[in-house]
Amino acid sequence: MGFKKQKFNPENDLGFGTKAVTKNQRLLNQDGSVNVKRKGLPFFDTSNNYHTLITISWTKFWLLVFTCYFTLNLIFASIYMAIGVDSLAGADGNTFWQHFWEAFFFSAQTLSTVGYGHMYPSGMMSSTVSAIESMIGLLAFALATGLLYGRFSRPSARISYSKNMLVAPYLDGQQAFMFRLANQRRSTLIDLQVEVNLSYLEEVDGKPIRRFLQLELERKRVSLLSLNWTVVHPIDDKSPLKDVSHADLVKAEATFAVLIKAFDDTFSQTVHSRTSYQYDEIVWGARFKPAFDRDESGAIVLDLSQISAYEKVELPVSVKQLN
Amino acid sequence: MGFKKQKFNPENDLGFGTKAVTKNQRLLNQDGSVNVKRKGLPFFDTSNNYHTLITISWTKFWLLVFTCYFTLNLIFASIYMAIGVDSLAGADGNTFWQHFWEAFFFSAQTLSTVGYGHMYPSGMMSSTVSAIESMIGLLAFALATGLLYGRFSRPSARISYSKNMLVAPYLDGQQAFMFRLANQRRSTLIDLQVEVNLSYLEEVDGKPIRRFLQLELERKRVSLLSLNWTVVHPIDDKSPLKDVSHADLVKAEATFAVLIKAFDDTFSQTVHSRTSYQYDEIVWGARFKPAFDRDESGAIVLDLSQISAYEKVELPVSVKQLN
Amino acid sequence: MGFKKQKFNPENDLGFGTKAVTKNQRLLNQDGSVNVKRKGLPFFDTSNNYHTLITISWTKFWLLVFTCYFTLNLIFASIYMAIGVDSLAGADGNTFWQHFWEAFFFSAQTLSTVGYGHMYPSGMMSSTVSAIESMIGLLAFALATGLLYGRFSRPSARISYSKNMLVAPYLDGQQAFMFRLANQRRSTLIDLQVEVNLSYLEEVDGKPIRRFLQLELERKRVSLLSLNWTVVHPIDDKSPLKDVSHADLVKAEATFAVLIKAFDDTFSQTVHSRTSYQYDEIVWGARFKPAFDRDESGAIVLDLSQISAYEKVELPVSVKQLN
Amino acid sequence: MGFKKQKFNPENDLGFGTKAVTKNQRLLNQDGSVNVKRKGLPFFDTSNNYHTLITISWTKFWLLVFTCYFTLNLIFASIYMAIGVDSLAGADGNTFWQHFWEAFFFSAQTLSTVGYGHMYPSGMMSSTVSAIESMIGLLAFALATGLLYGRFSRPSARISYSKNMLVAPYLDGQQAFMFRLANQRRSTLIDLQVEVNLSYLEEVDGKPIRRFLQLELERKRVSLLSLNWTVVHPIDDKSPLKDVSHADLVKAEATFAVLIKAFDDTFSQTVHSRTSYQYDEIVWGARFKPAFDRDESGAIVLDLSQISAYEKVELPVSVKQLN
Repeated sequence: MGFKKQKFNPENDLGFGTKAVTKNQRLLNQDGSVNVKRKGLPFFDTSNNYHTLITISWTKFWLLVFTCYFTLNLIFASIYMAIGVDSLAGADGNTFWQHFWEAFFFSAQTLSTVGYGHMYPSGMMSSTVSAIESMIGLLAFALATGLLYGRFSRPSARISYSKNMLVAPYLDGQQAFMFRLANQRRSTLIDLQVEVNLSYLEEVDGKPIRRFLQLELERKRVSLLSLNWTVVHPIDDKSPLKDVSHADLVKAEATFAVLIKAFDDTFSQTVHSRTSYQYDEIVWGARFKPAFDRDESGAIVLDLSQISAYEKVELPVSVKQLN
Repeated sequence: MGFKKQKFNPENDLGFGTKAVTKNQRLLNQDGSVNVKRKGLPFFDTSNNYHTLITISWTKFWLLVFTCYFTLNLIFASIYMAIGVDSLAGADGNTFWQHFWEAFFFSAQTLSTVGYGHMYPSGMMSSTVSAIESMIGLLAFALATGLLYGRFSRPSARISYSKNMLVAPYLDGQQAFMFRLANQRRSTLIDLQVEVNLSYLEEVDGKPIRRFLQLELERKRVSLLSLNWTVVHPIDDKSPLKDVSHADLVKAEATFAVLIKAFDDTFSQTVHSRTSYQYDEIVWGARFKPAFDRDESGAIVLDLSQISAYEKVELPVSVKQLN
Repeated sequence: MGFKKQKFNPENDLGFGTKAVTKNQRLLNQDGSVNVKRKGLPFFDTSNNYHTLITISWTKFWLLVFTCYFTLNLIFASIYMAIGVDSLAGADGNTFWQHFWEAFFFSAQTLSTVGYGHMYPSGMMSSTVSAIESMIGLLAFALATGLLYGRFSRPSARISYSKNMLVAPYLDGQQAFMFRLANQRRSTLIDLQVEVNLSYLEEVDGKPIRRFLQLELERKRVSLLSLNWTVVHPIDDKSPLKDVSHADLVKAEATFAVLIKAFDDTFSQTVHSRTSYQYDEIVWGARFKPAFDRDESGAIVLDLSQISAYEKVELPVSVKQLN
Repeated sequence: MGFKKQKFNPENDLGFGTKAVTKNQRLLNQDGSVNVKRKGLPFFDTSNNYHTLITISWTKFWLLVFTCYFTLNLIFASIYMAIGVDSLAGADGNTFWQHFWEAFFFSAQTLSTVGYGHMYPSGMMSSTVSAIESMIGLLAFALATGLLYGRFSRPSARISYSKNMLVAPYLDGQQAFMFRLANQRRSTLIDLQVEVNLSYLEEVDGKPIRRFLQLELERKRVSLLSLNWTVVHPIDDKSPLKDVSHADLVKAEATFAVLIKAFDDTFSQTVHSRTSYQYDEIVWGARFKPAFDRDESGAIVLDLSQISAYEKVELPVSVKQLN
């Protein structure tokens, strides 16, 4: 029977607009990133240095730190060479390149403020340059170490989501859309809130328009995420998914966007997580197997590898099940 | 027909009071800063050192850091000179100024803790001074580097707003005030909320009084700002702008103050942005051109240079349009 | 006529309990601190080191840093002396005390990692000690500099409150309790919220019981605190202060506790401020003089020295005014 | 009479699920930690380095820092040895181990950037290694010191809870469940909110099912926690604990989970605290003794050692009291 016509509610579209997206293109990727490219502004206006440096990969970050250190030393070595061979007392090289590398390593010892002292600046010029260099070294390394620690301590949630969304039996002979999640980390997540948005295509005057609906949930919030949590959208009379079959979901390219917000007790900050389920990730007629059990001592054990585990069950015939 | 008389609602005046401001003077500037000067307190009571140091321009910041470094070295050089020429072993200058600069560079090497060691303190007095100086150096550079990183990593939103506010056709033959915005940065803005306040002059007993009204919006919140977002105030029966013409807005010196709040996923913090639209920045009878499109691969591309792009359209005659 | 009997609402008592406080003893001081002593737990359980170190006076903080530096050096100097005179190469003292001070300054040069090198550890023992000392130095100075920067950048609001609370004429021949506030700093305060709680004594069975009431305000929130803001509690039929005279306030030892919360745009954090007004700080029959004006160029100028300025006015006879 | 059958409200179960836990096993421990083990993911996926390093004990933290420092020095000493005995000028050992320890201490002096200079790198190879080592030293110590300060300044609440929950006389001849809390620290807690969840076993078809209920409180929030606060659940007609006896609580293994949230004025951040009361920690027929008093000067003194102090009282016969 397909989707019921919905009253247009602009609060629900997640800011994506109603323009249809081509087949097999998600707006929200499974890892929570957004599927949008940007252009029209110079690189430096769209990026923020801090944003970039805090989010690039560790490999790139280390490469960048190393390159900056190397380049700064090259520059200062050149300056010392320009001032003259005698500007560094204690240097005993004979060739140009020997002198250059001595200046280079003197620069490294100054930038890092290790200052062994077997070479030292001699004369006003090189003394001034090395005084400035040690100041620059302190400031530059402060940026590098600040970023290092900032990257290391950056608040983030790592939530394990079940691979599939299930259409499972629910209370009183009803069915419900369900997915499951658990905190992958050992930290405690407090006051966790979830929002599930359904997007699907609707034909309006022969043209596909993307519609967005926020789904009602059995429960939108847990005070404490200690075990796993099964998020449930019951297919009751109020549900826009009442009488919607698997084929309808495929045809309408239905996608469920999941937005999660919680307070992490370790970071003492609010963290967010996002994921999405597409029509082909929905299993009709299945229910999750328990993901926690008791060990010999009677203690509860949560098995994170079982978050996605489900078993097939028979749905009542009233549920259109076409896969 | 002008503005309808409004019931006075003190919750709406943004804290500016009802006193009229002279022509062409905005209360809230387009860059979000507030148009108010302050006096009556000594400089040091109104300023907060941290506030100042975190918000001054980079040029001023670097100048300040450099000046402090130079001044501290001058002070300590003078102290070493006062203690005596022999207090620094390894110094081999002959004139007063040669000694002074040696003391100056020794101080720089101590402040930055580079400590080459070709000069070193000799005797109780200079040893004590240099021990204190190296402590001061560590603490002072910690402040400087803390501020440097604080400035660098300071959370801020950079929102692109459309240059103009439009009066555009809306649903069911209505019109609406609209402006558009997008996140200039690549970071993800979550749970973005917007508030639009209209301020205008009303004649009460022949004296102009400034009135403030919070405008109803089609939608006040998006879960995720991934593309652009068009903020819409529909001109319906409840709108205070029903039957208000362009001439009315000019006469009443109408200004729309826009306040935005969102959670930035990279900074993991709440960020704010503000702007304003004045009567002469409103275009009657226009609509925004799409700012995003699809590239060859079918991916969505947001063109930030097109945020302000609009095209002229005919408004129904019922809309008083006098420009 | 005194205070009307109020329905008991436990949400209002600010957590102070109903036990009466003796005369002239405020629960909340004018500077926002709470007037309660604590005992019953060992010092170290009630204090938090970080709490203490971030809130002690600057004088105490500097004294503490200096004392720790001095003490650490004393300890390590003693260790080097215990290892033996020859453990530090380059030391050339002759007497015990000369050796001791050389060890002391070597320790200072190691702790601060300045390491001139005219003295250096010689032998396993002193090399090990100095390797550990430099590590300790780095960690200890990191704590000191972290605290220094933490103190420096600690978010805090500095609000100027009017010295007095006024009973002033209000709309439609009514009166209202009013006080005024402004942001002392140049930063922008966003989304400022205020809460005013009245506490007073009521005789129950001959024993004074402290009652707490949250007062209704003309307005509880401003989007942006740009000028001053006059907080108003109108004395209307719903007000518990209807028909209450100055003598009633004195007898009941009435105190108004003011709690303020705002988002500071510079710190990017929520800040709080508190103050209180006691019965003897209330002026009956007065109104605030404007605290802002226009300069020659037409710009608004806020005069922070005029926040408390008021002028006497005649109140209608219906207001019981006995002072 | 036991627990009334409750309408199932999924918002209340704290995320623990309805599966019964074995006797004497709390879901939420008294110190606020959660009683759940986790498995099924490799160690590194469940842990977050930052999480781990910020929460391990101080002993482990110091051991780790020391071990890393020692290991890094061992590694670099080996590298210098591999380059050759002559790579470090100023080293004068004769045996392999003498050379090795010289290399080791040279490494320590480079890592910590103390750089005395009696030994210094000679030649391209060792100069390069020491330049890299000093860079690594700066970065590694930045991580260590960042963690040290992060651990030290980590926001946390330290709330004193009363040892027992009491069933005490309340207004109008009613009874109420009560517990008491106070801020153990001298900091000010603002806008403190409390949530109490009752969990108990219910027999459904002969199988025990764990039920969760959020209890109504006399008051859920205080603006300012300045003294102690008694949290009260009145046993009125709406209460699920109406007509529940002590024996019922024991049989149903009733546990009260307490979740607290507040803003700490010193940390300028939101802090959380949790605890729980089990059926055997409930005292029927008792009331708390006052925990604060006045000293000679009339000032209020809060005695933190008296938070748990109670005295026995007679409950009306209508309360089933079986202990």
